[in-house]
This record gives sequence, C-alpha cells and structure tokens, in this order.
Amino acid sequence: MNHEQSISTDLIEFLSGFPELDKDKIESIANMIPVITPRKGTILLKESEIPKECYFVLKGMVRQYRLIEGIERTTEFYTEANGTVSSDHYTDQTPSSSFLECAEDCLLIAGNMKTDGVNYEQFPELAEITRRILENDLNRTKKALSDFILSSPKERYLHFMKTRPELLNRAPLHQIASYLGMTPESLSRIRKRIVSPGS
Amino acid sequence: MNHEQSISTDLIEFLSGFPELDKDKIESIANMIPVITPRKGTILLKESEIPKECYFVLKGMVRQYRLIEGIERTTEFYTEANGTVSSDHYTDQTPSSSFLECAEDCLLIAGNMKTDGVNYEQFPELAEITRRILENDLNRTKKALSDFILSSPKERYLHFMKTRPELLNRAPLHQIASYLGMTPESLSRIRKRIVSPGS
Repeated sequence: MNHEQSISTDLIEFLSGFPELDKDKIESIANMIPVITPRKGTILLKESEIPKECYFVLKGMVRQYRLIEGIERTTEFYTEANGTVSSDHYTDQTPSSSFLECAEDCLLIAGNMKTDGVNYEQFPELAEITRRILENDLNRTKKALSDFILSSPKERYLHFMKTRPELLNRAPLHQIASYLGMTPESLSRIRKRIVSPGS
Repeated sequence: MNHEQSISTDLIEFLSGFPELDKDKIESIANMIPVITPRKGTILLKESEIPKECYFVLKGMVRQYRLIEGIERTTEFYTEANGTVSSDHYTDQTPSSSFLECAEDCLLIAGNMKTDGVNYEQFPELAEITRRILENDLNRTKKALSDFILSSPKERYLHFMKTRPELLNRAPLHQIASYLGMTPESLSRIRKRIVSPGS
C-alpha cells in the first residue's frame, strides 16, 4: 500500500464509524476532505499568529502549549481519542495565545473558513456528524474541567493513569506534569509514593 | 405584559441574535422550542439519575455540584453568557455524577432526545446555530481548562474577576471558592491581600 492509499484507508475507517453514511457517501466525502500529513516537530500554529485552519487528529499527537517566562507549559495533548483541535482564536480570527506542535508524525483533517460552508451544504450528514463530535468533545472537556477543579494533584495523576495511560509512552514526563498542573518534581514524588507507599 | 408574553420576548430576543433566521422563522421556532421556568431552588437533576433533558439558560443561573463526603462542591455556574448545560451522562444515558440546581429563578430551553431530531429536519438553520453554540462553548471550556491548569489560585481569582465579576453578586463566596478550586479560607486570604497588599 502506498502513502496516498494508507491515508485514504485511515480516513475511510474514521468515517465508517458514523452509521448515517453509506459506502458511496463515505467515498465522496473522503475525496473531498482536506487531509495533511505533517512530520513530528512541525509547528502548526505559533503564539500571536491568527489561526488559518482547525484540525482533527486521525493519527498521531498534537501538543498545545504556552510559552510562559521562556518555559513551555503544556495544556493539552490531542490524539485519536480526543481529536478536535480548535480555539476561540480560530473562531474569532484573533492572535493565538498558544502554540500547536506535532509531537508525533500526524495525519490530520485540516479545515478552513473557505471550505467549511461548502461541505455542509453538499453533505447535510456532515453537519450532524460535526455536531456529534463537538458535543462529545464539549462533554469531555467539561468533565475534565470539573475533575481538575475538584481533585488533588495525586487524584489527578491517578485519574490520568486510568483515562489516558497511553500518553505515558507518548509524551515526556515534564510535559505530562505541566498538563496535570504540577511541577515535574511533584509528579516524580507522587509516582514514587504510589509505587512504594511505605517510603 | 403577562408571564407567557415575557417568556416569548426573551426567547425571541435570543433567537434574533442569529442573522440566518428571519422574522417568520424566529416566530415558528419560538413556538416550537420547549421552554421551562423553574423557581430558585429547583433541582433539575440529582446524582445517580439518568438525565432526561439538557438545558440552555436564557435567564437565571443553574449551579452544577457534586456531593463529596457530604459537602457540596460547585464545579460550574451556567448563566446567560454560558448557557449550555449538558453532560456525557445525557449523551450516554448513564447515571449523573453531579446535581443541577436552579440557583435563581430560571428561564431555560429544555431539550430531550425525542424532540431533538424533529427540530433539525424542519429547520435546518437550527443545526447550524446549534453547531455554532457548541463550538463557542467548546472553545470557552477548553480555554477555561488551559487557564485553570496554568494558573495559581491568586491568578485564578484575578481572571475570574475579569471574566465573570457578576457572579460575585449572584453566588455565595464558598461556592465561588469551590469553583476556583480552593477553600473558602484561601479565597478570603487572597481577596484581603488584593485589597490591602501591604498587610
């Protein structure tokens, strides 16, 4: 299978998850959806740039971070399970406060203002699918915020291990520490205590 | 103006914010949308109940909280500016982990699974509007999560004063403290220090 074929397989697999799309529609939509394959390390968006696109992760990982006093502070890891990469800066067309970096080789749907309208008119099912994706993502993000508000650093780490354990193999610990709202030192301490609670 | 008329005025005002709806459509949709007017203190949803409805706040305030070791821990205030009250428990039809309480007399759009589909087919513009509301709310929630992750308690309070100062007059301080992820004592201390930084 060549590179183009493998992209199309991944996209078709993703679209097949939506029962309202039959085989013909999936093929037409797959041919129309703009997909990009940025390499690990690619910066998709810089601080103070106005976002030109929003993304959905089909494969790989996009990391969102802010630069605070010269230090990268990771606030989100977008992966296959948590794919919608967007922000109010895209919606409002204002300068972004974050960076978006491909933390792995990626396969992304890349939407922009110009193509958005056309798709929905041509395929009304897409509007319903987009709504469902947004709804799920909104619910997940709301839950993440409530959990974050209510939990101690240790509880946050335990919850992370339960819900996103695969990130431990995909991201360095100092980025995970930032994402959990703690210093790398606190994270190490918590991890050590969990492994050997007596020490 | 009687009670019914005043409800319809608020709903029409809300719908008029969407330029794709003309006067006739606004009236038809307003007649179709199910609106409820629960009093302050009404519990819309209890922990371990399966949600039957989702809500959108046109007027008033809905508070979301969890009961943890007998203590109410507030995680969100839904108001006119931040109206979508929904959760994965509604989407998945699983028992809720939170309570939803009307913290003021409310005017709410109350959607349920049965009416959802009908509306969109009859008024395709509603699908586009819903998508935009969801998108805005998702962006706002994502930003709130990033901000929460990156900020100290004092920064969180300052940000709250900048973005949602009206809540200070609408909710008791211990609920605001919980929502900001701190104890009421920490919140008092921060507030005192900001008022008289030398003390």
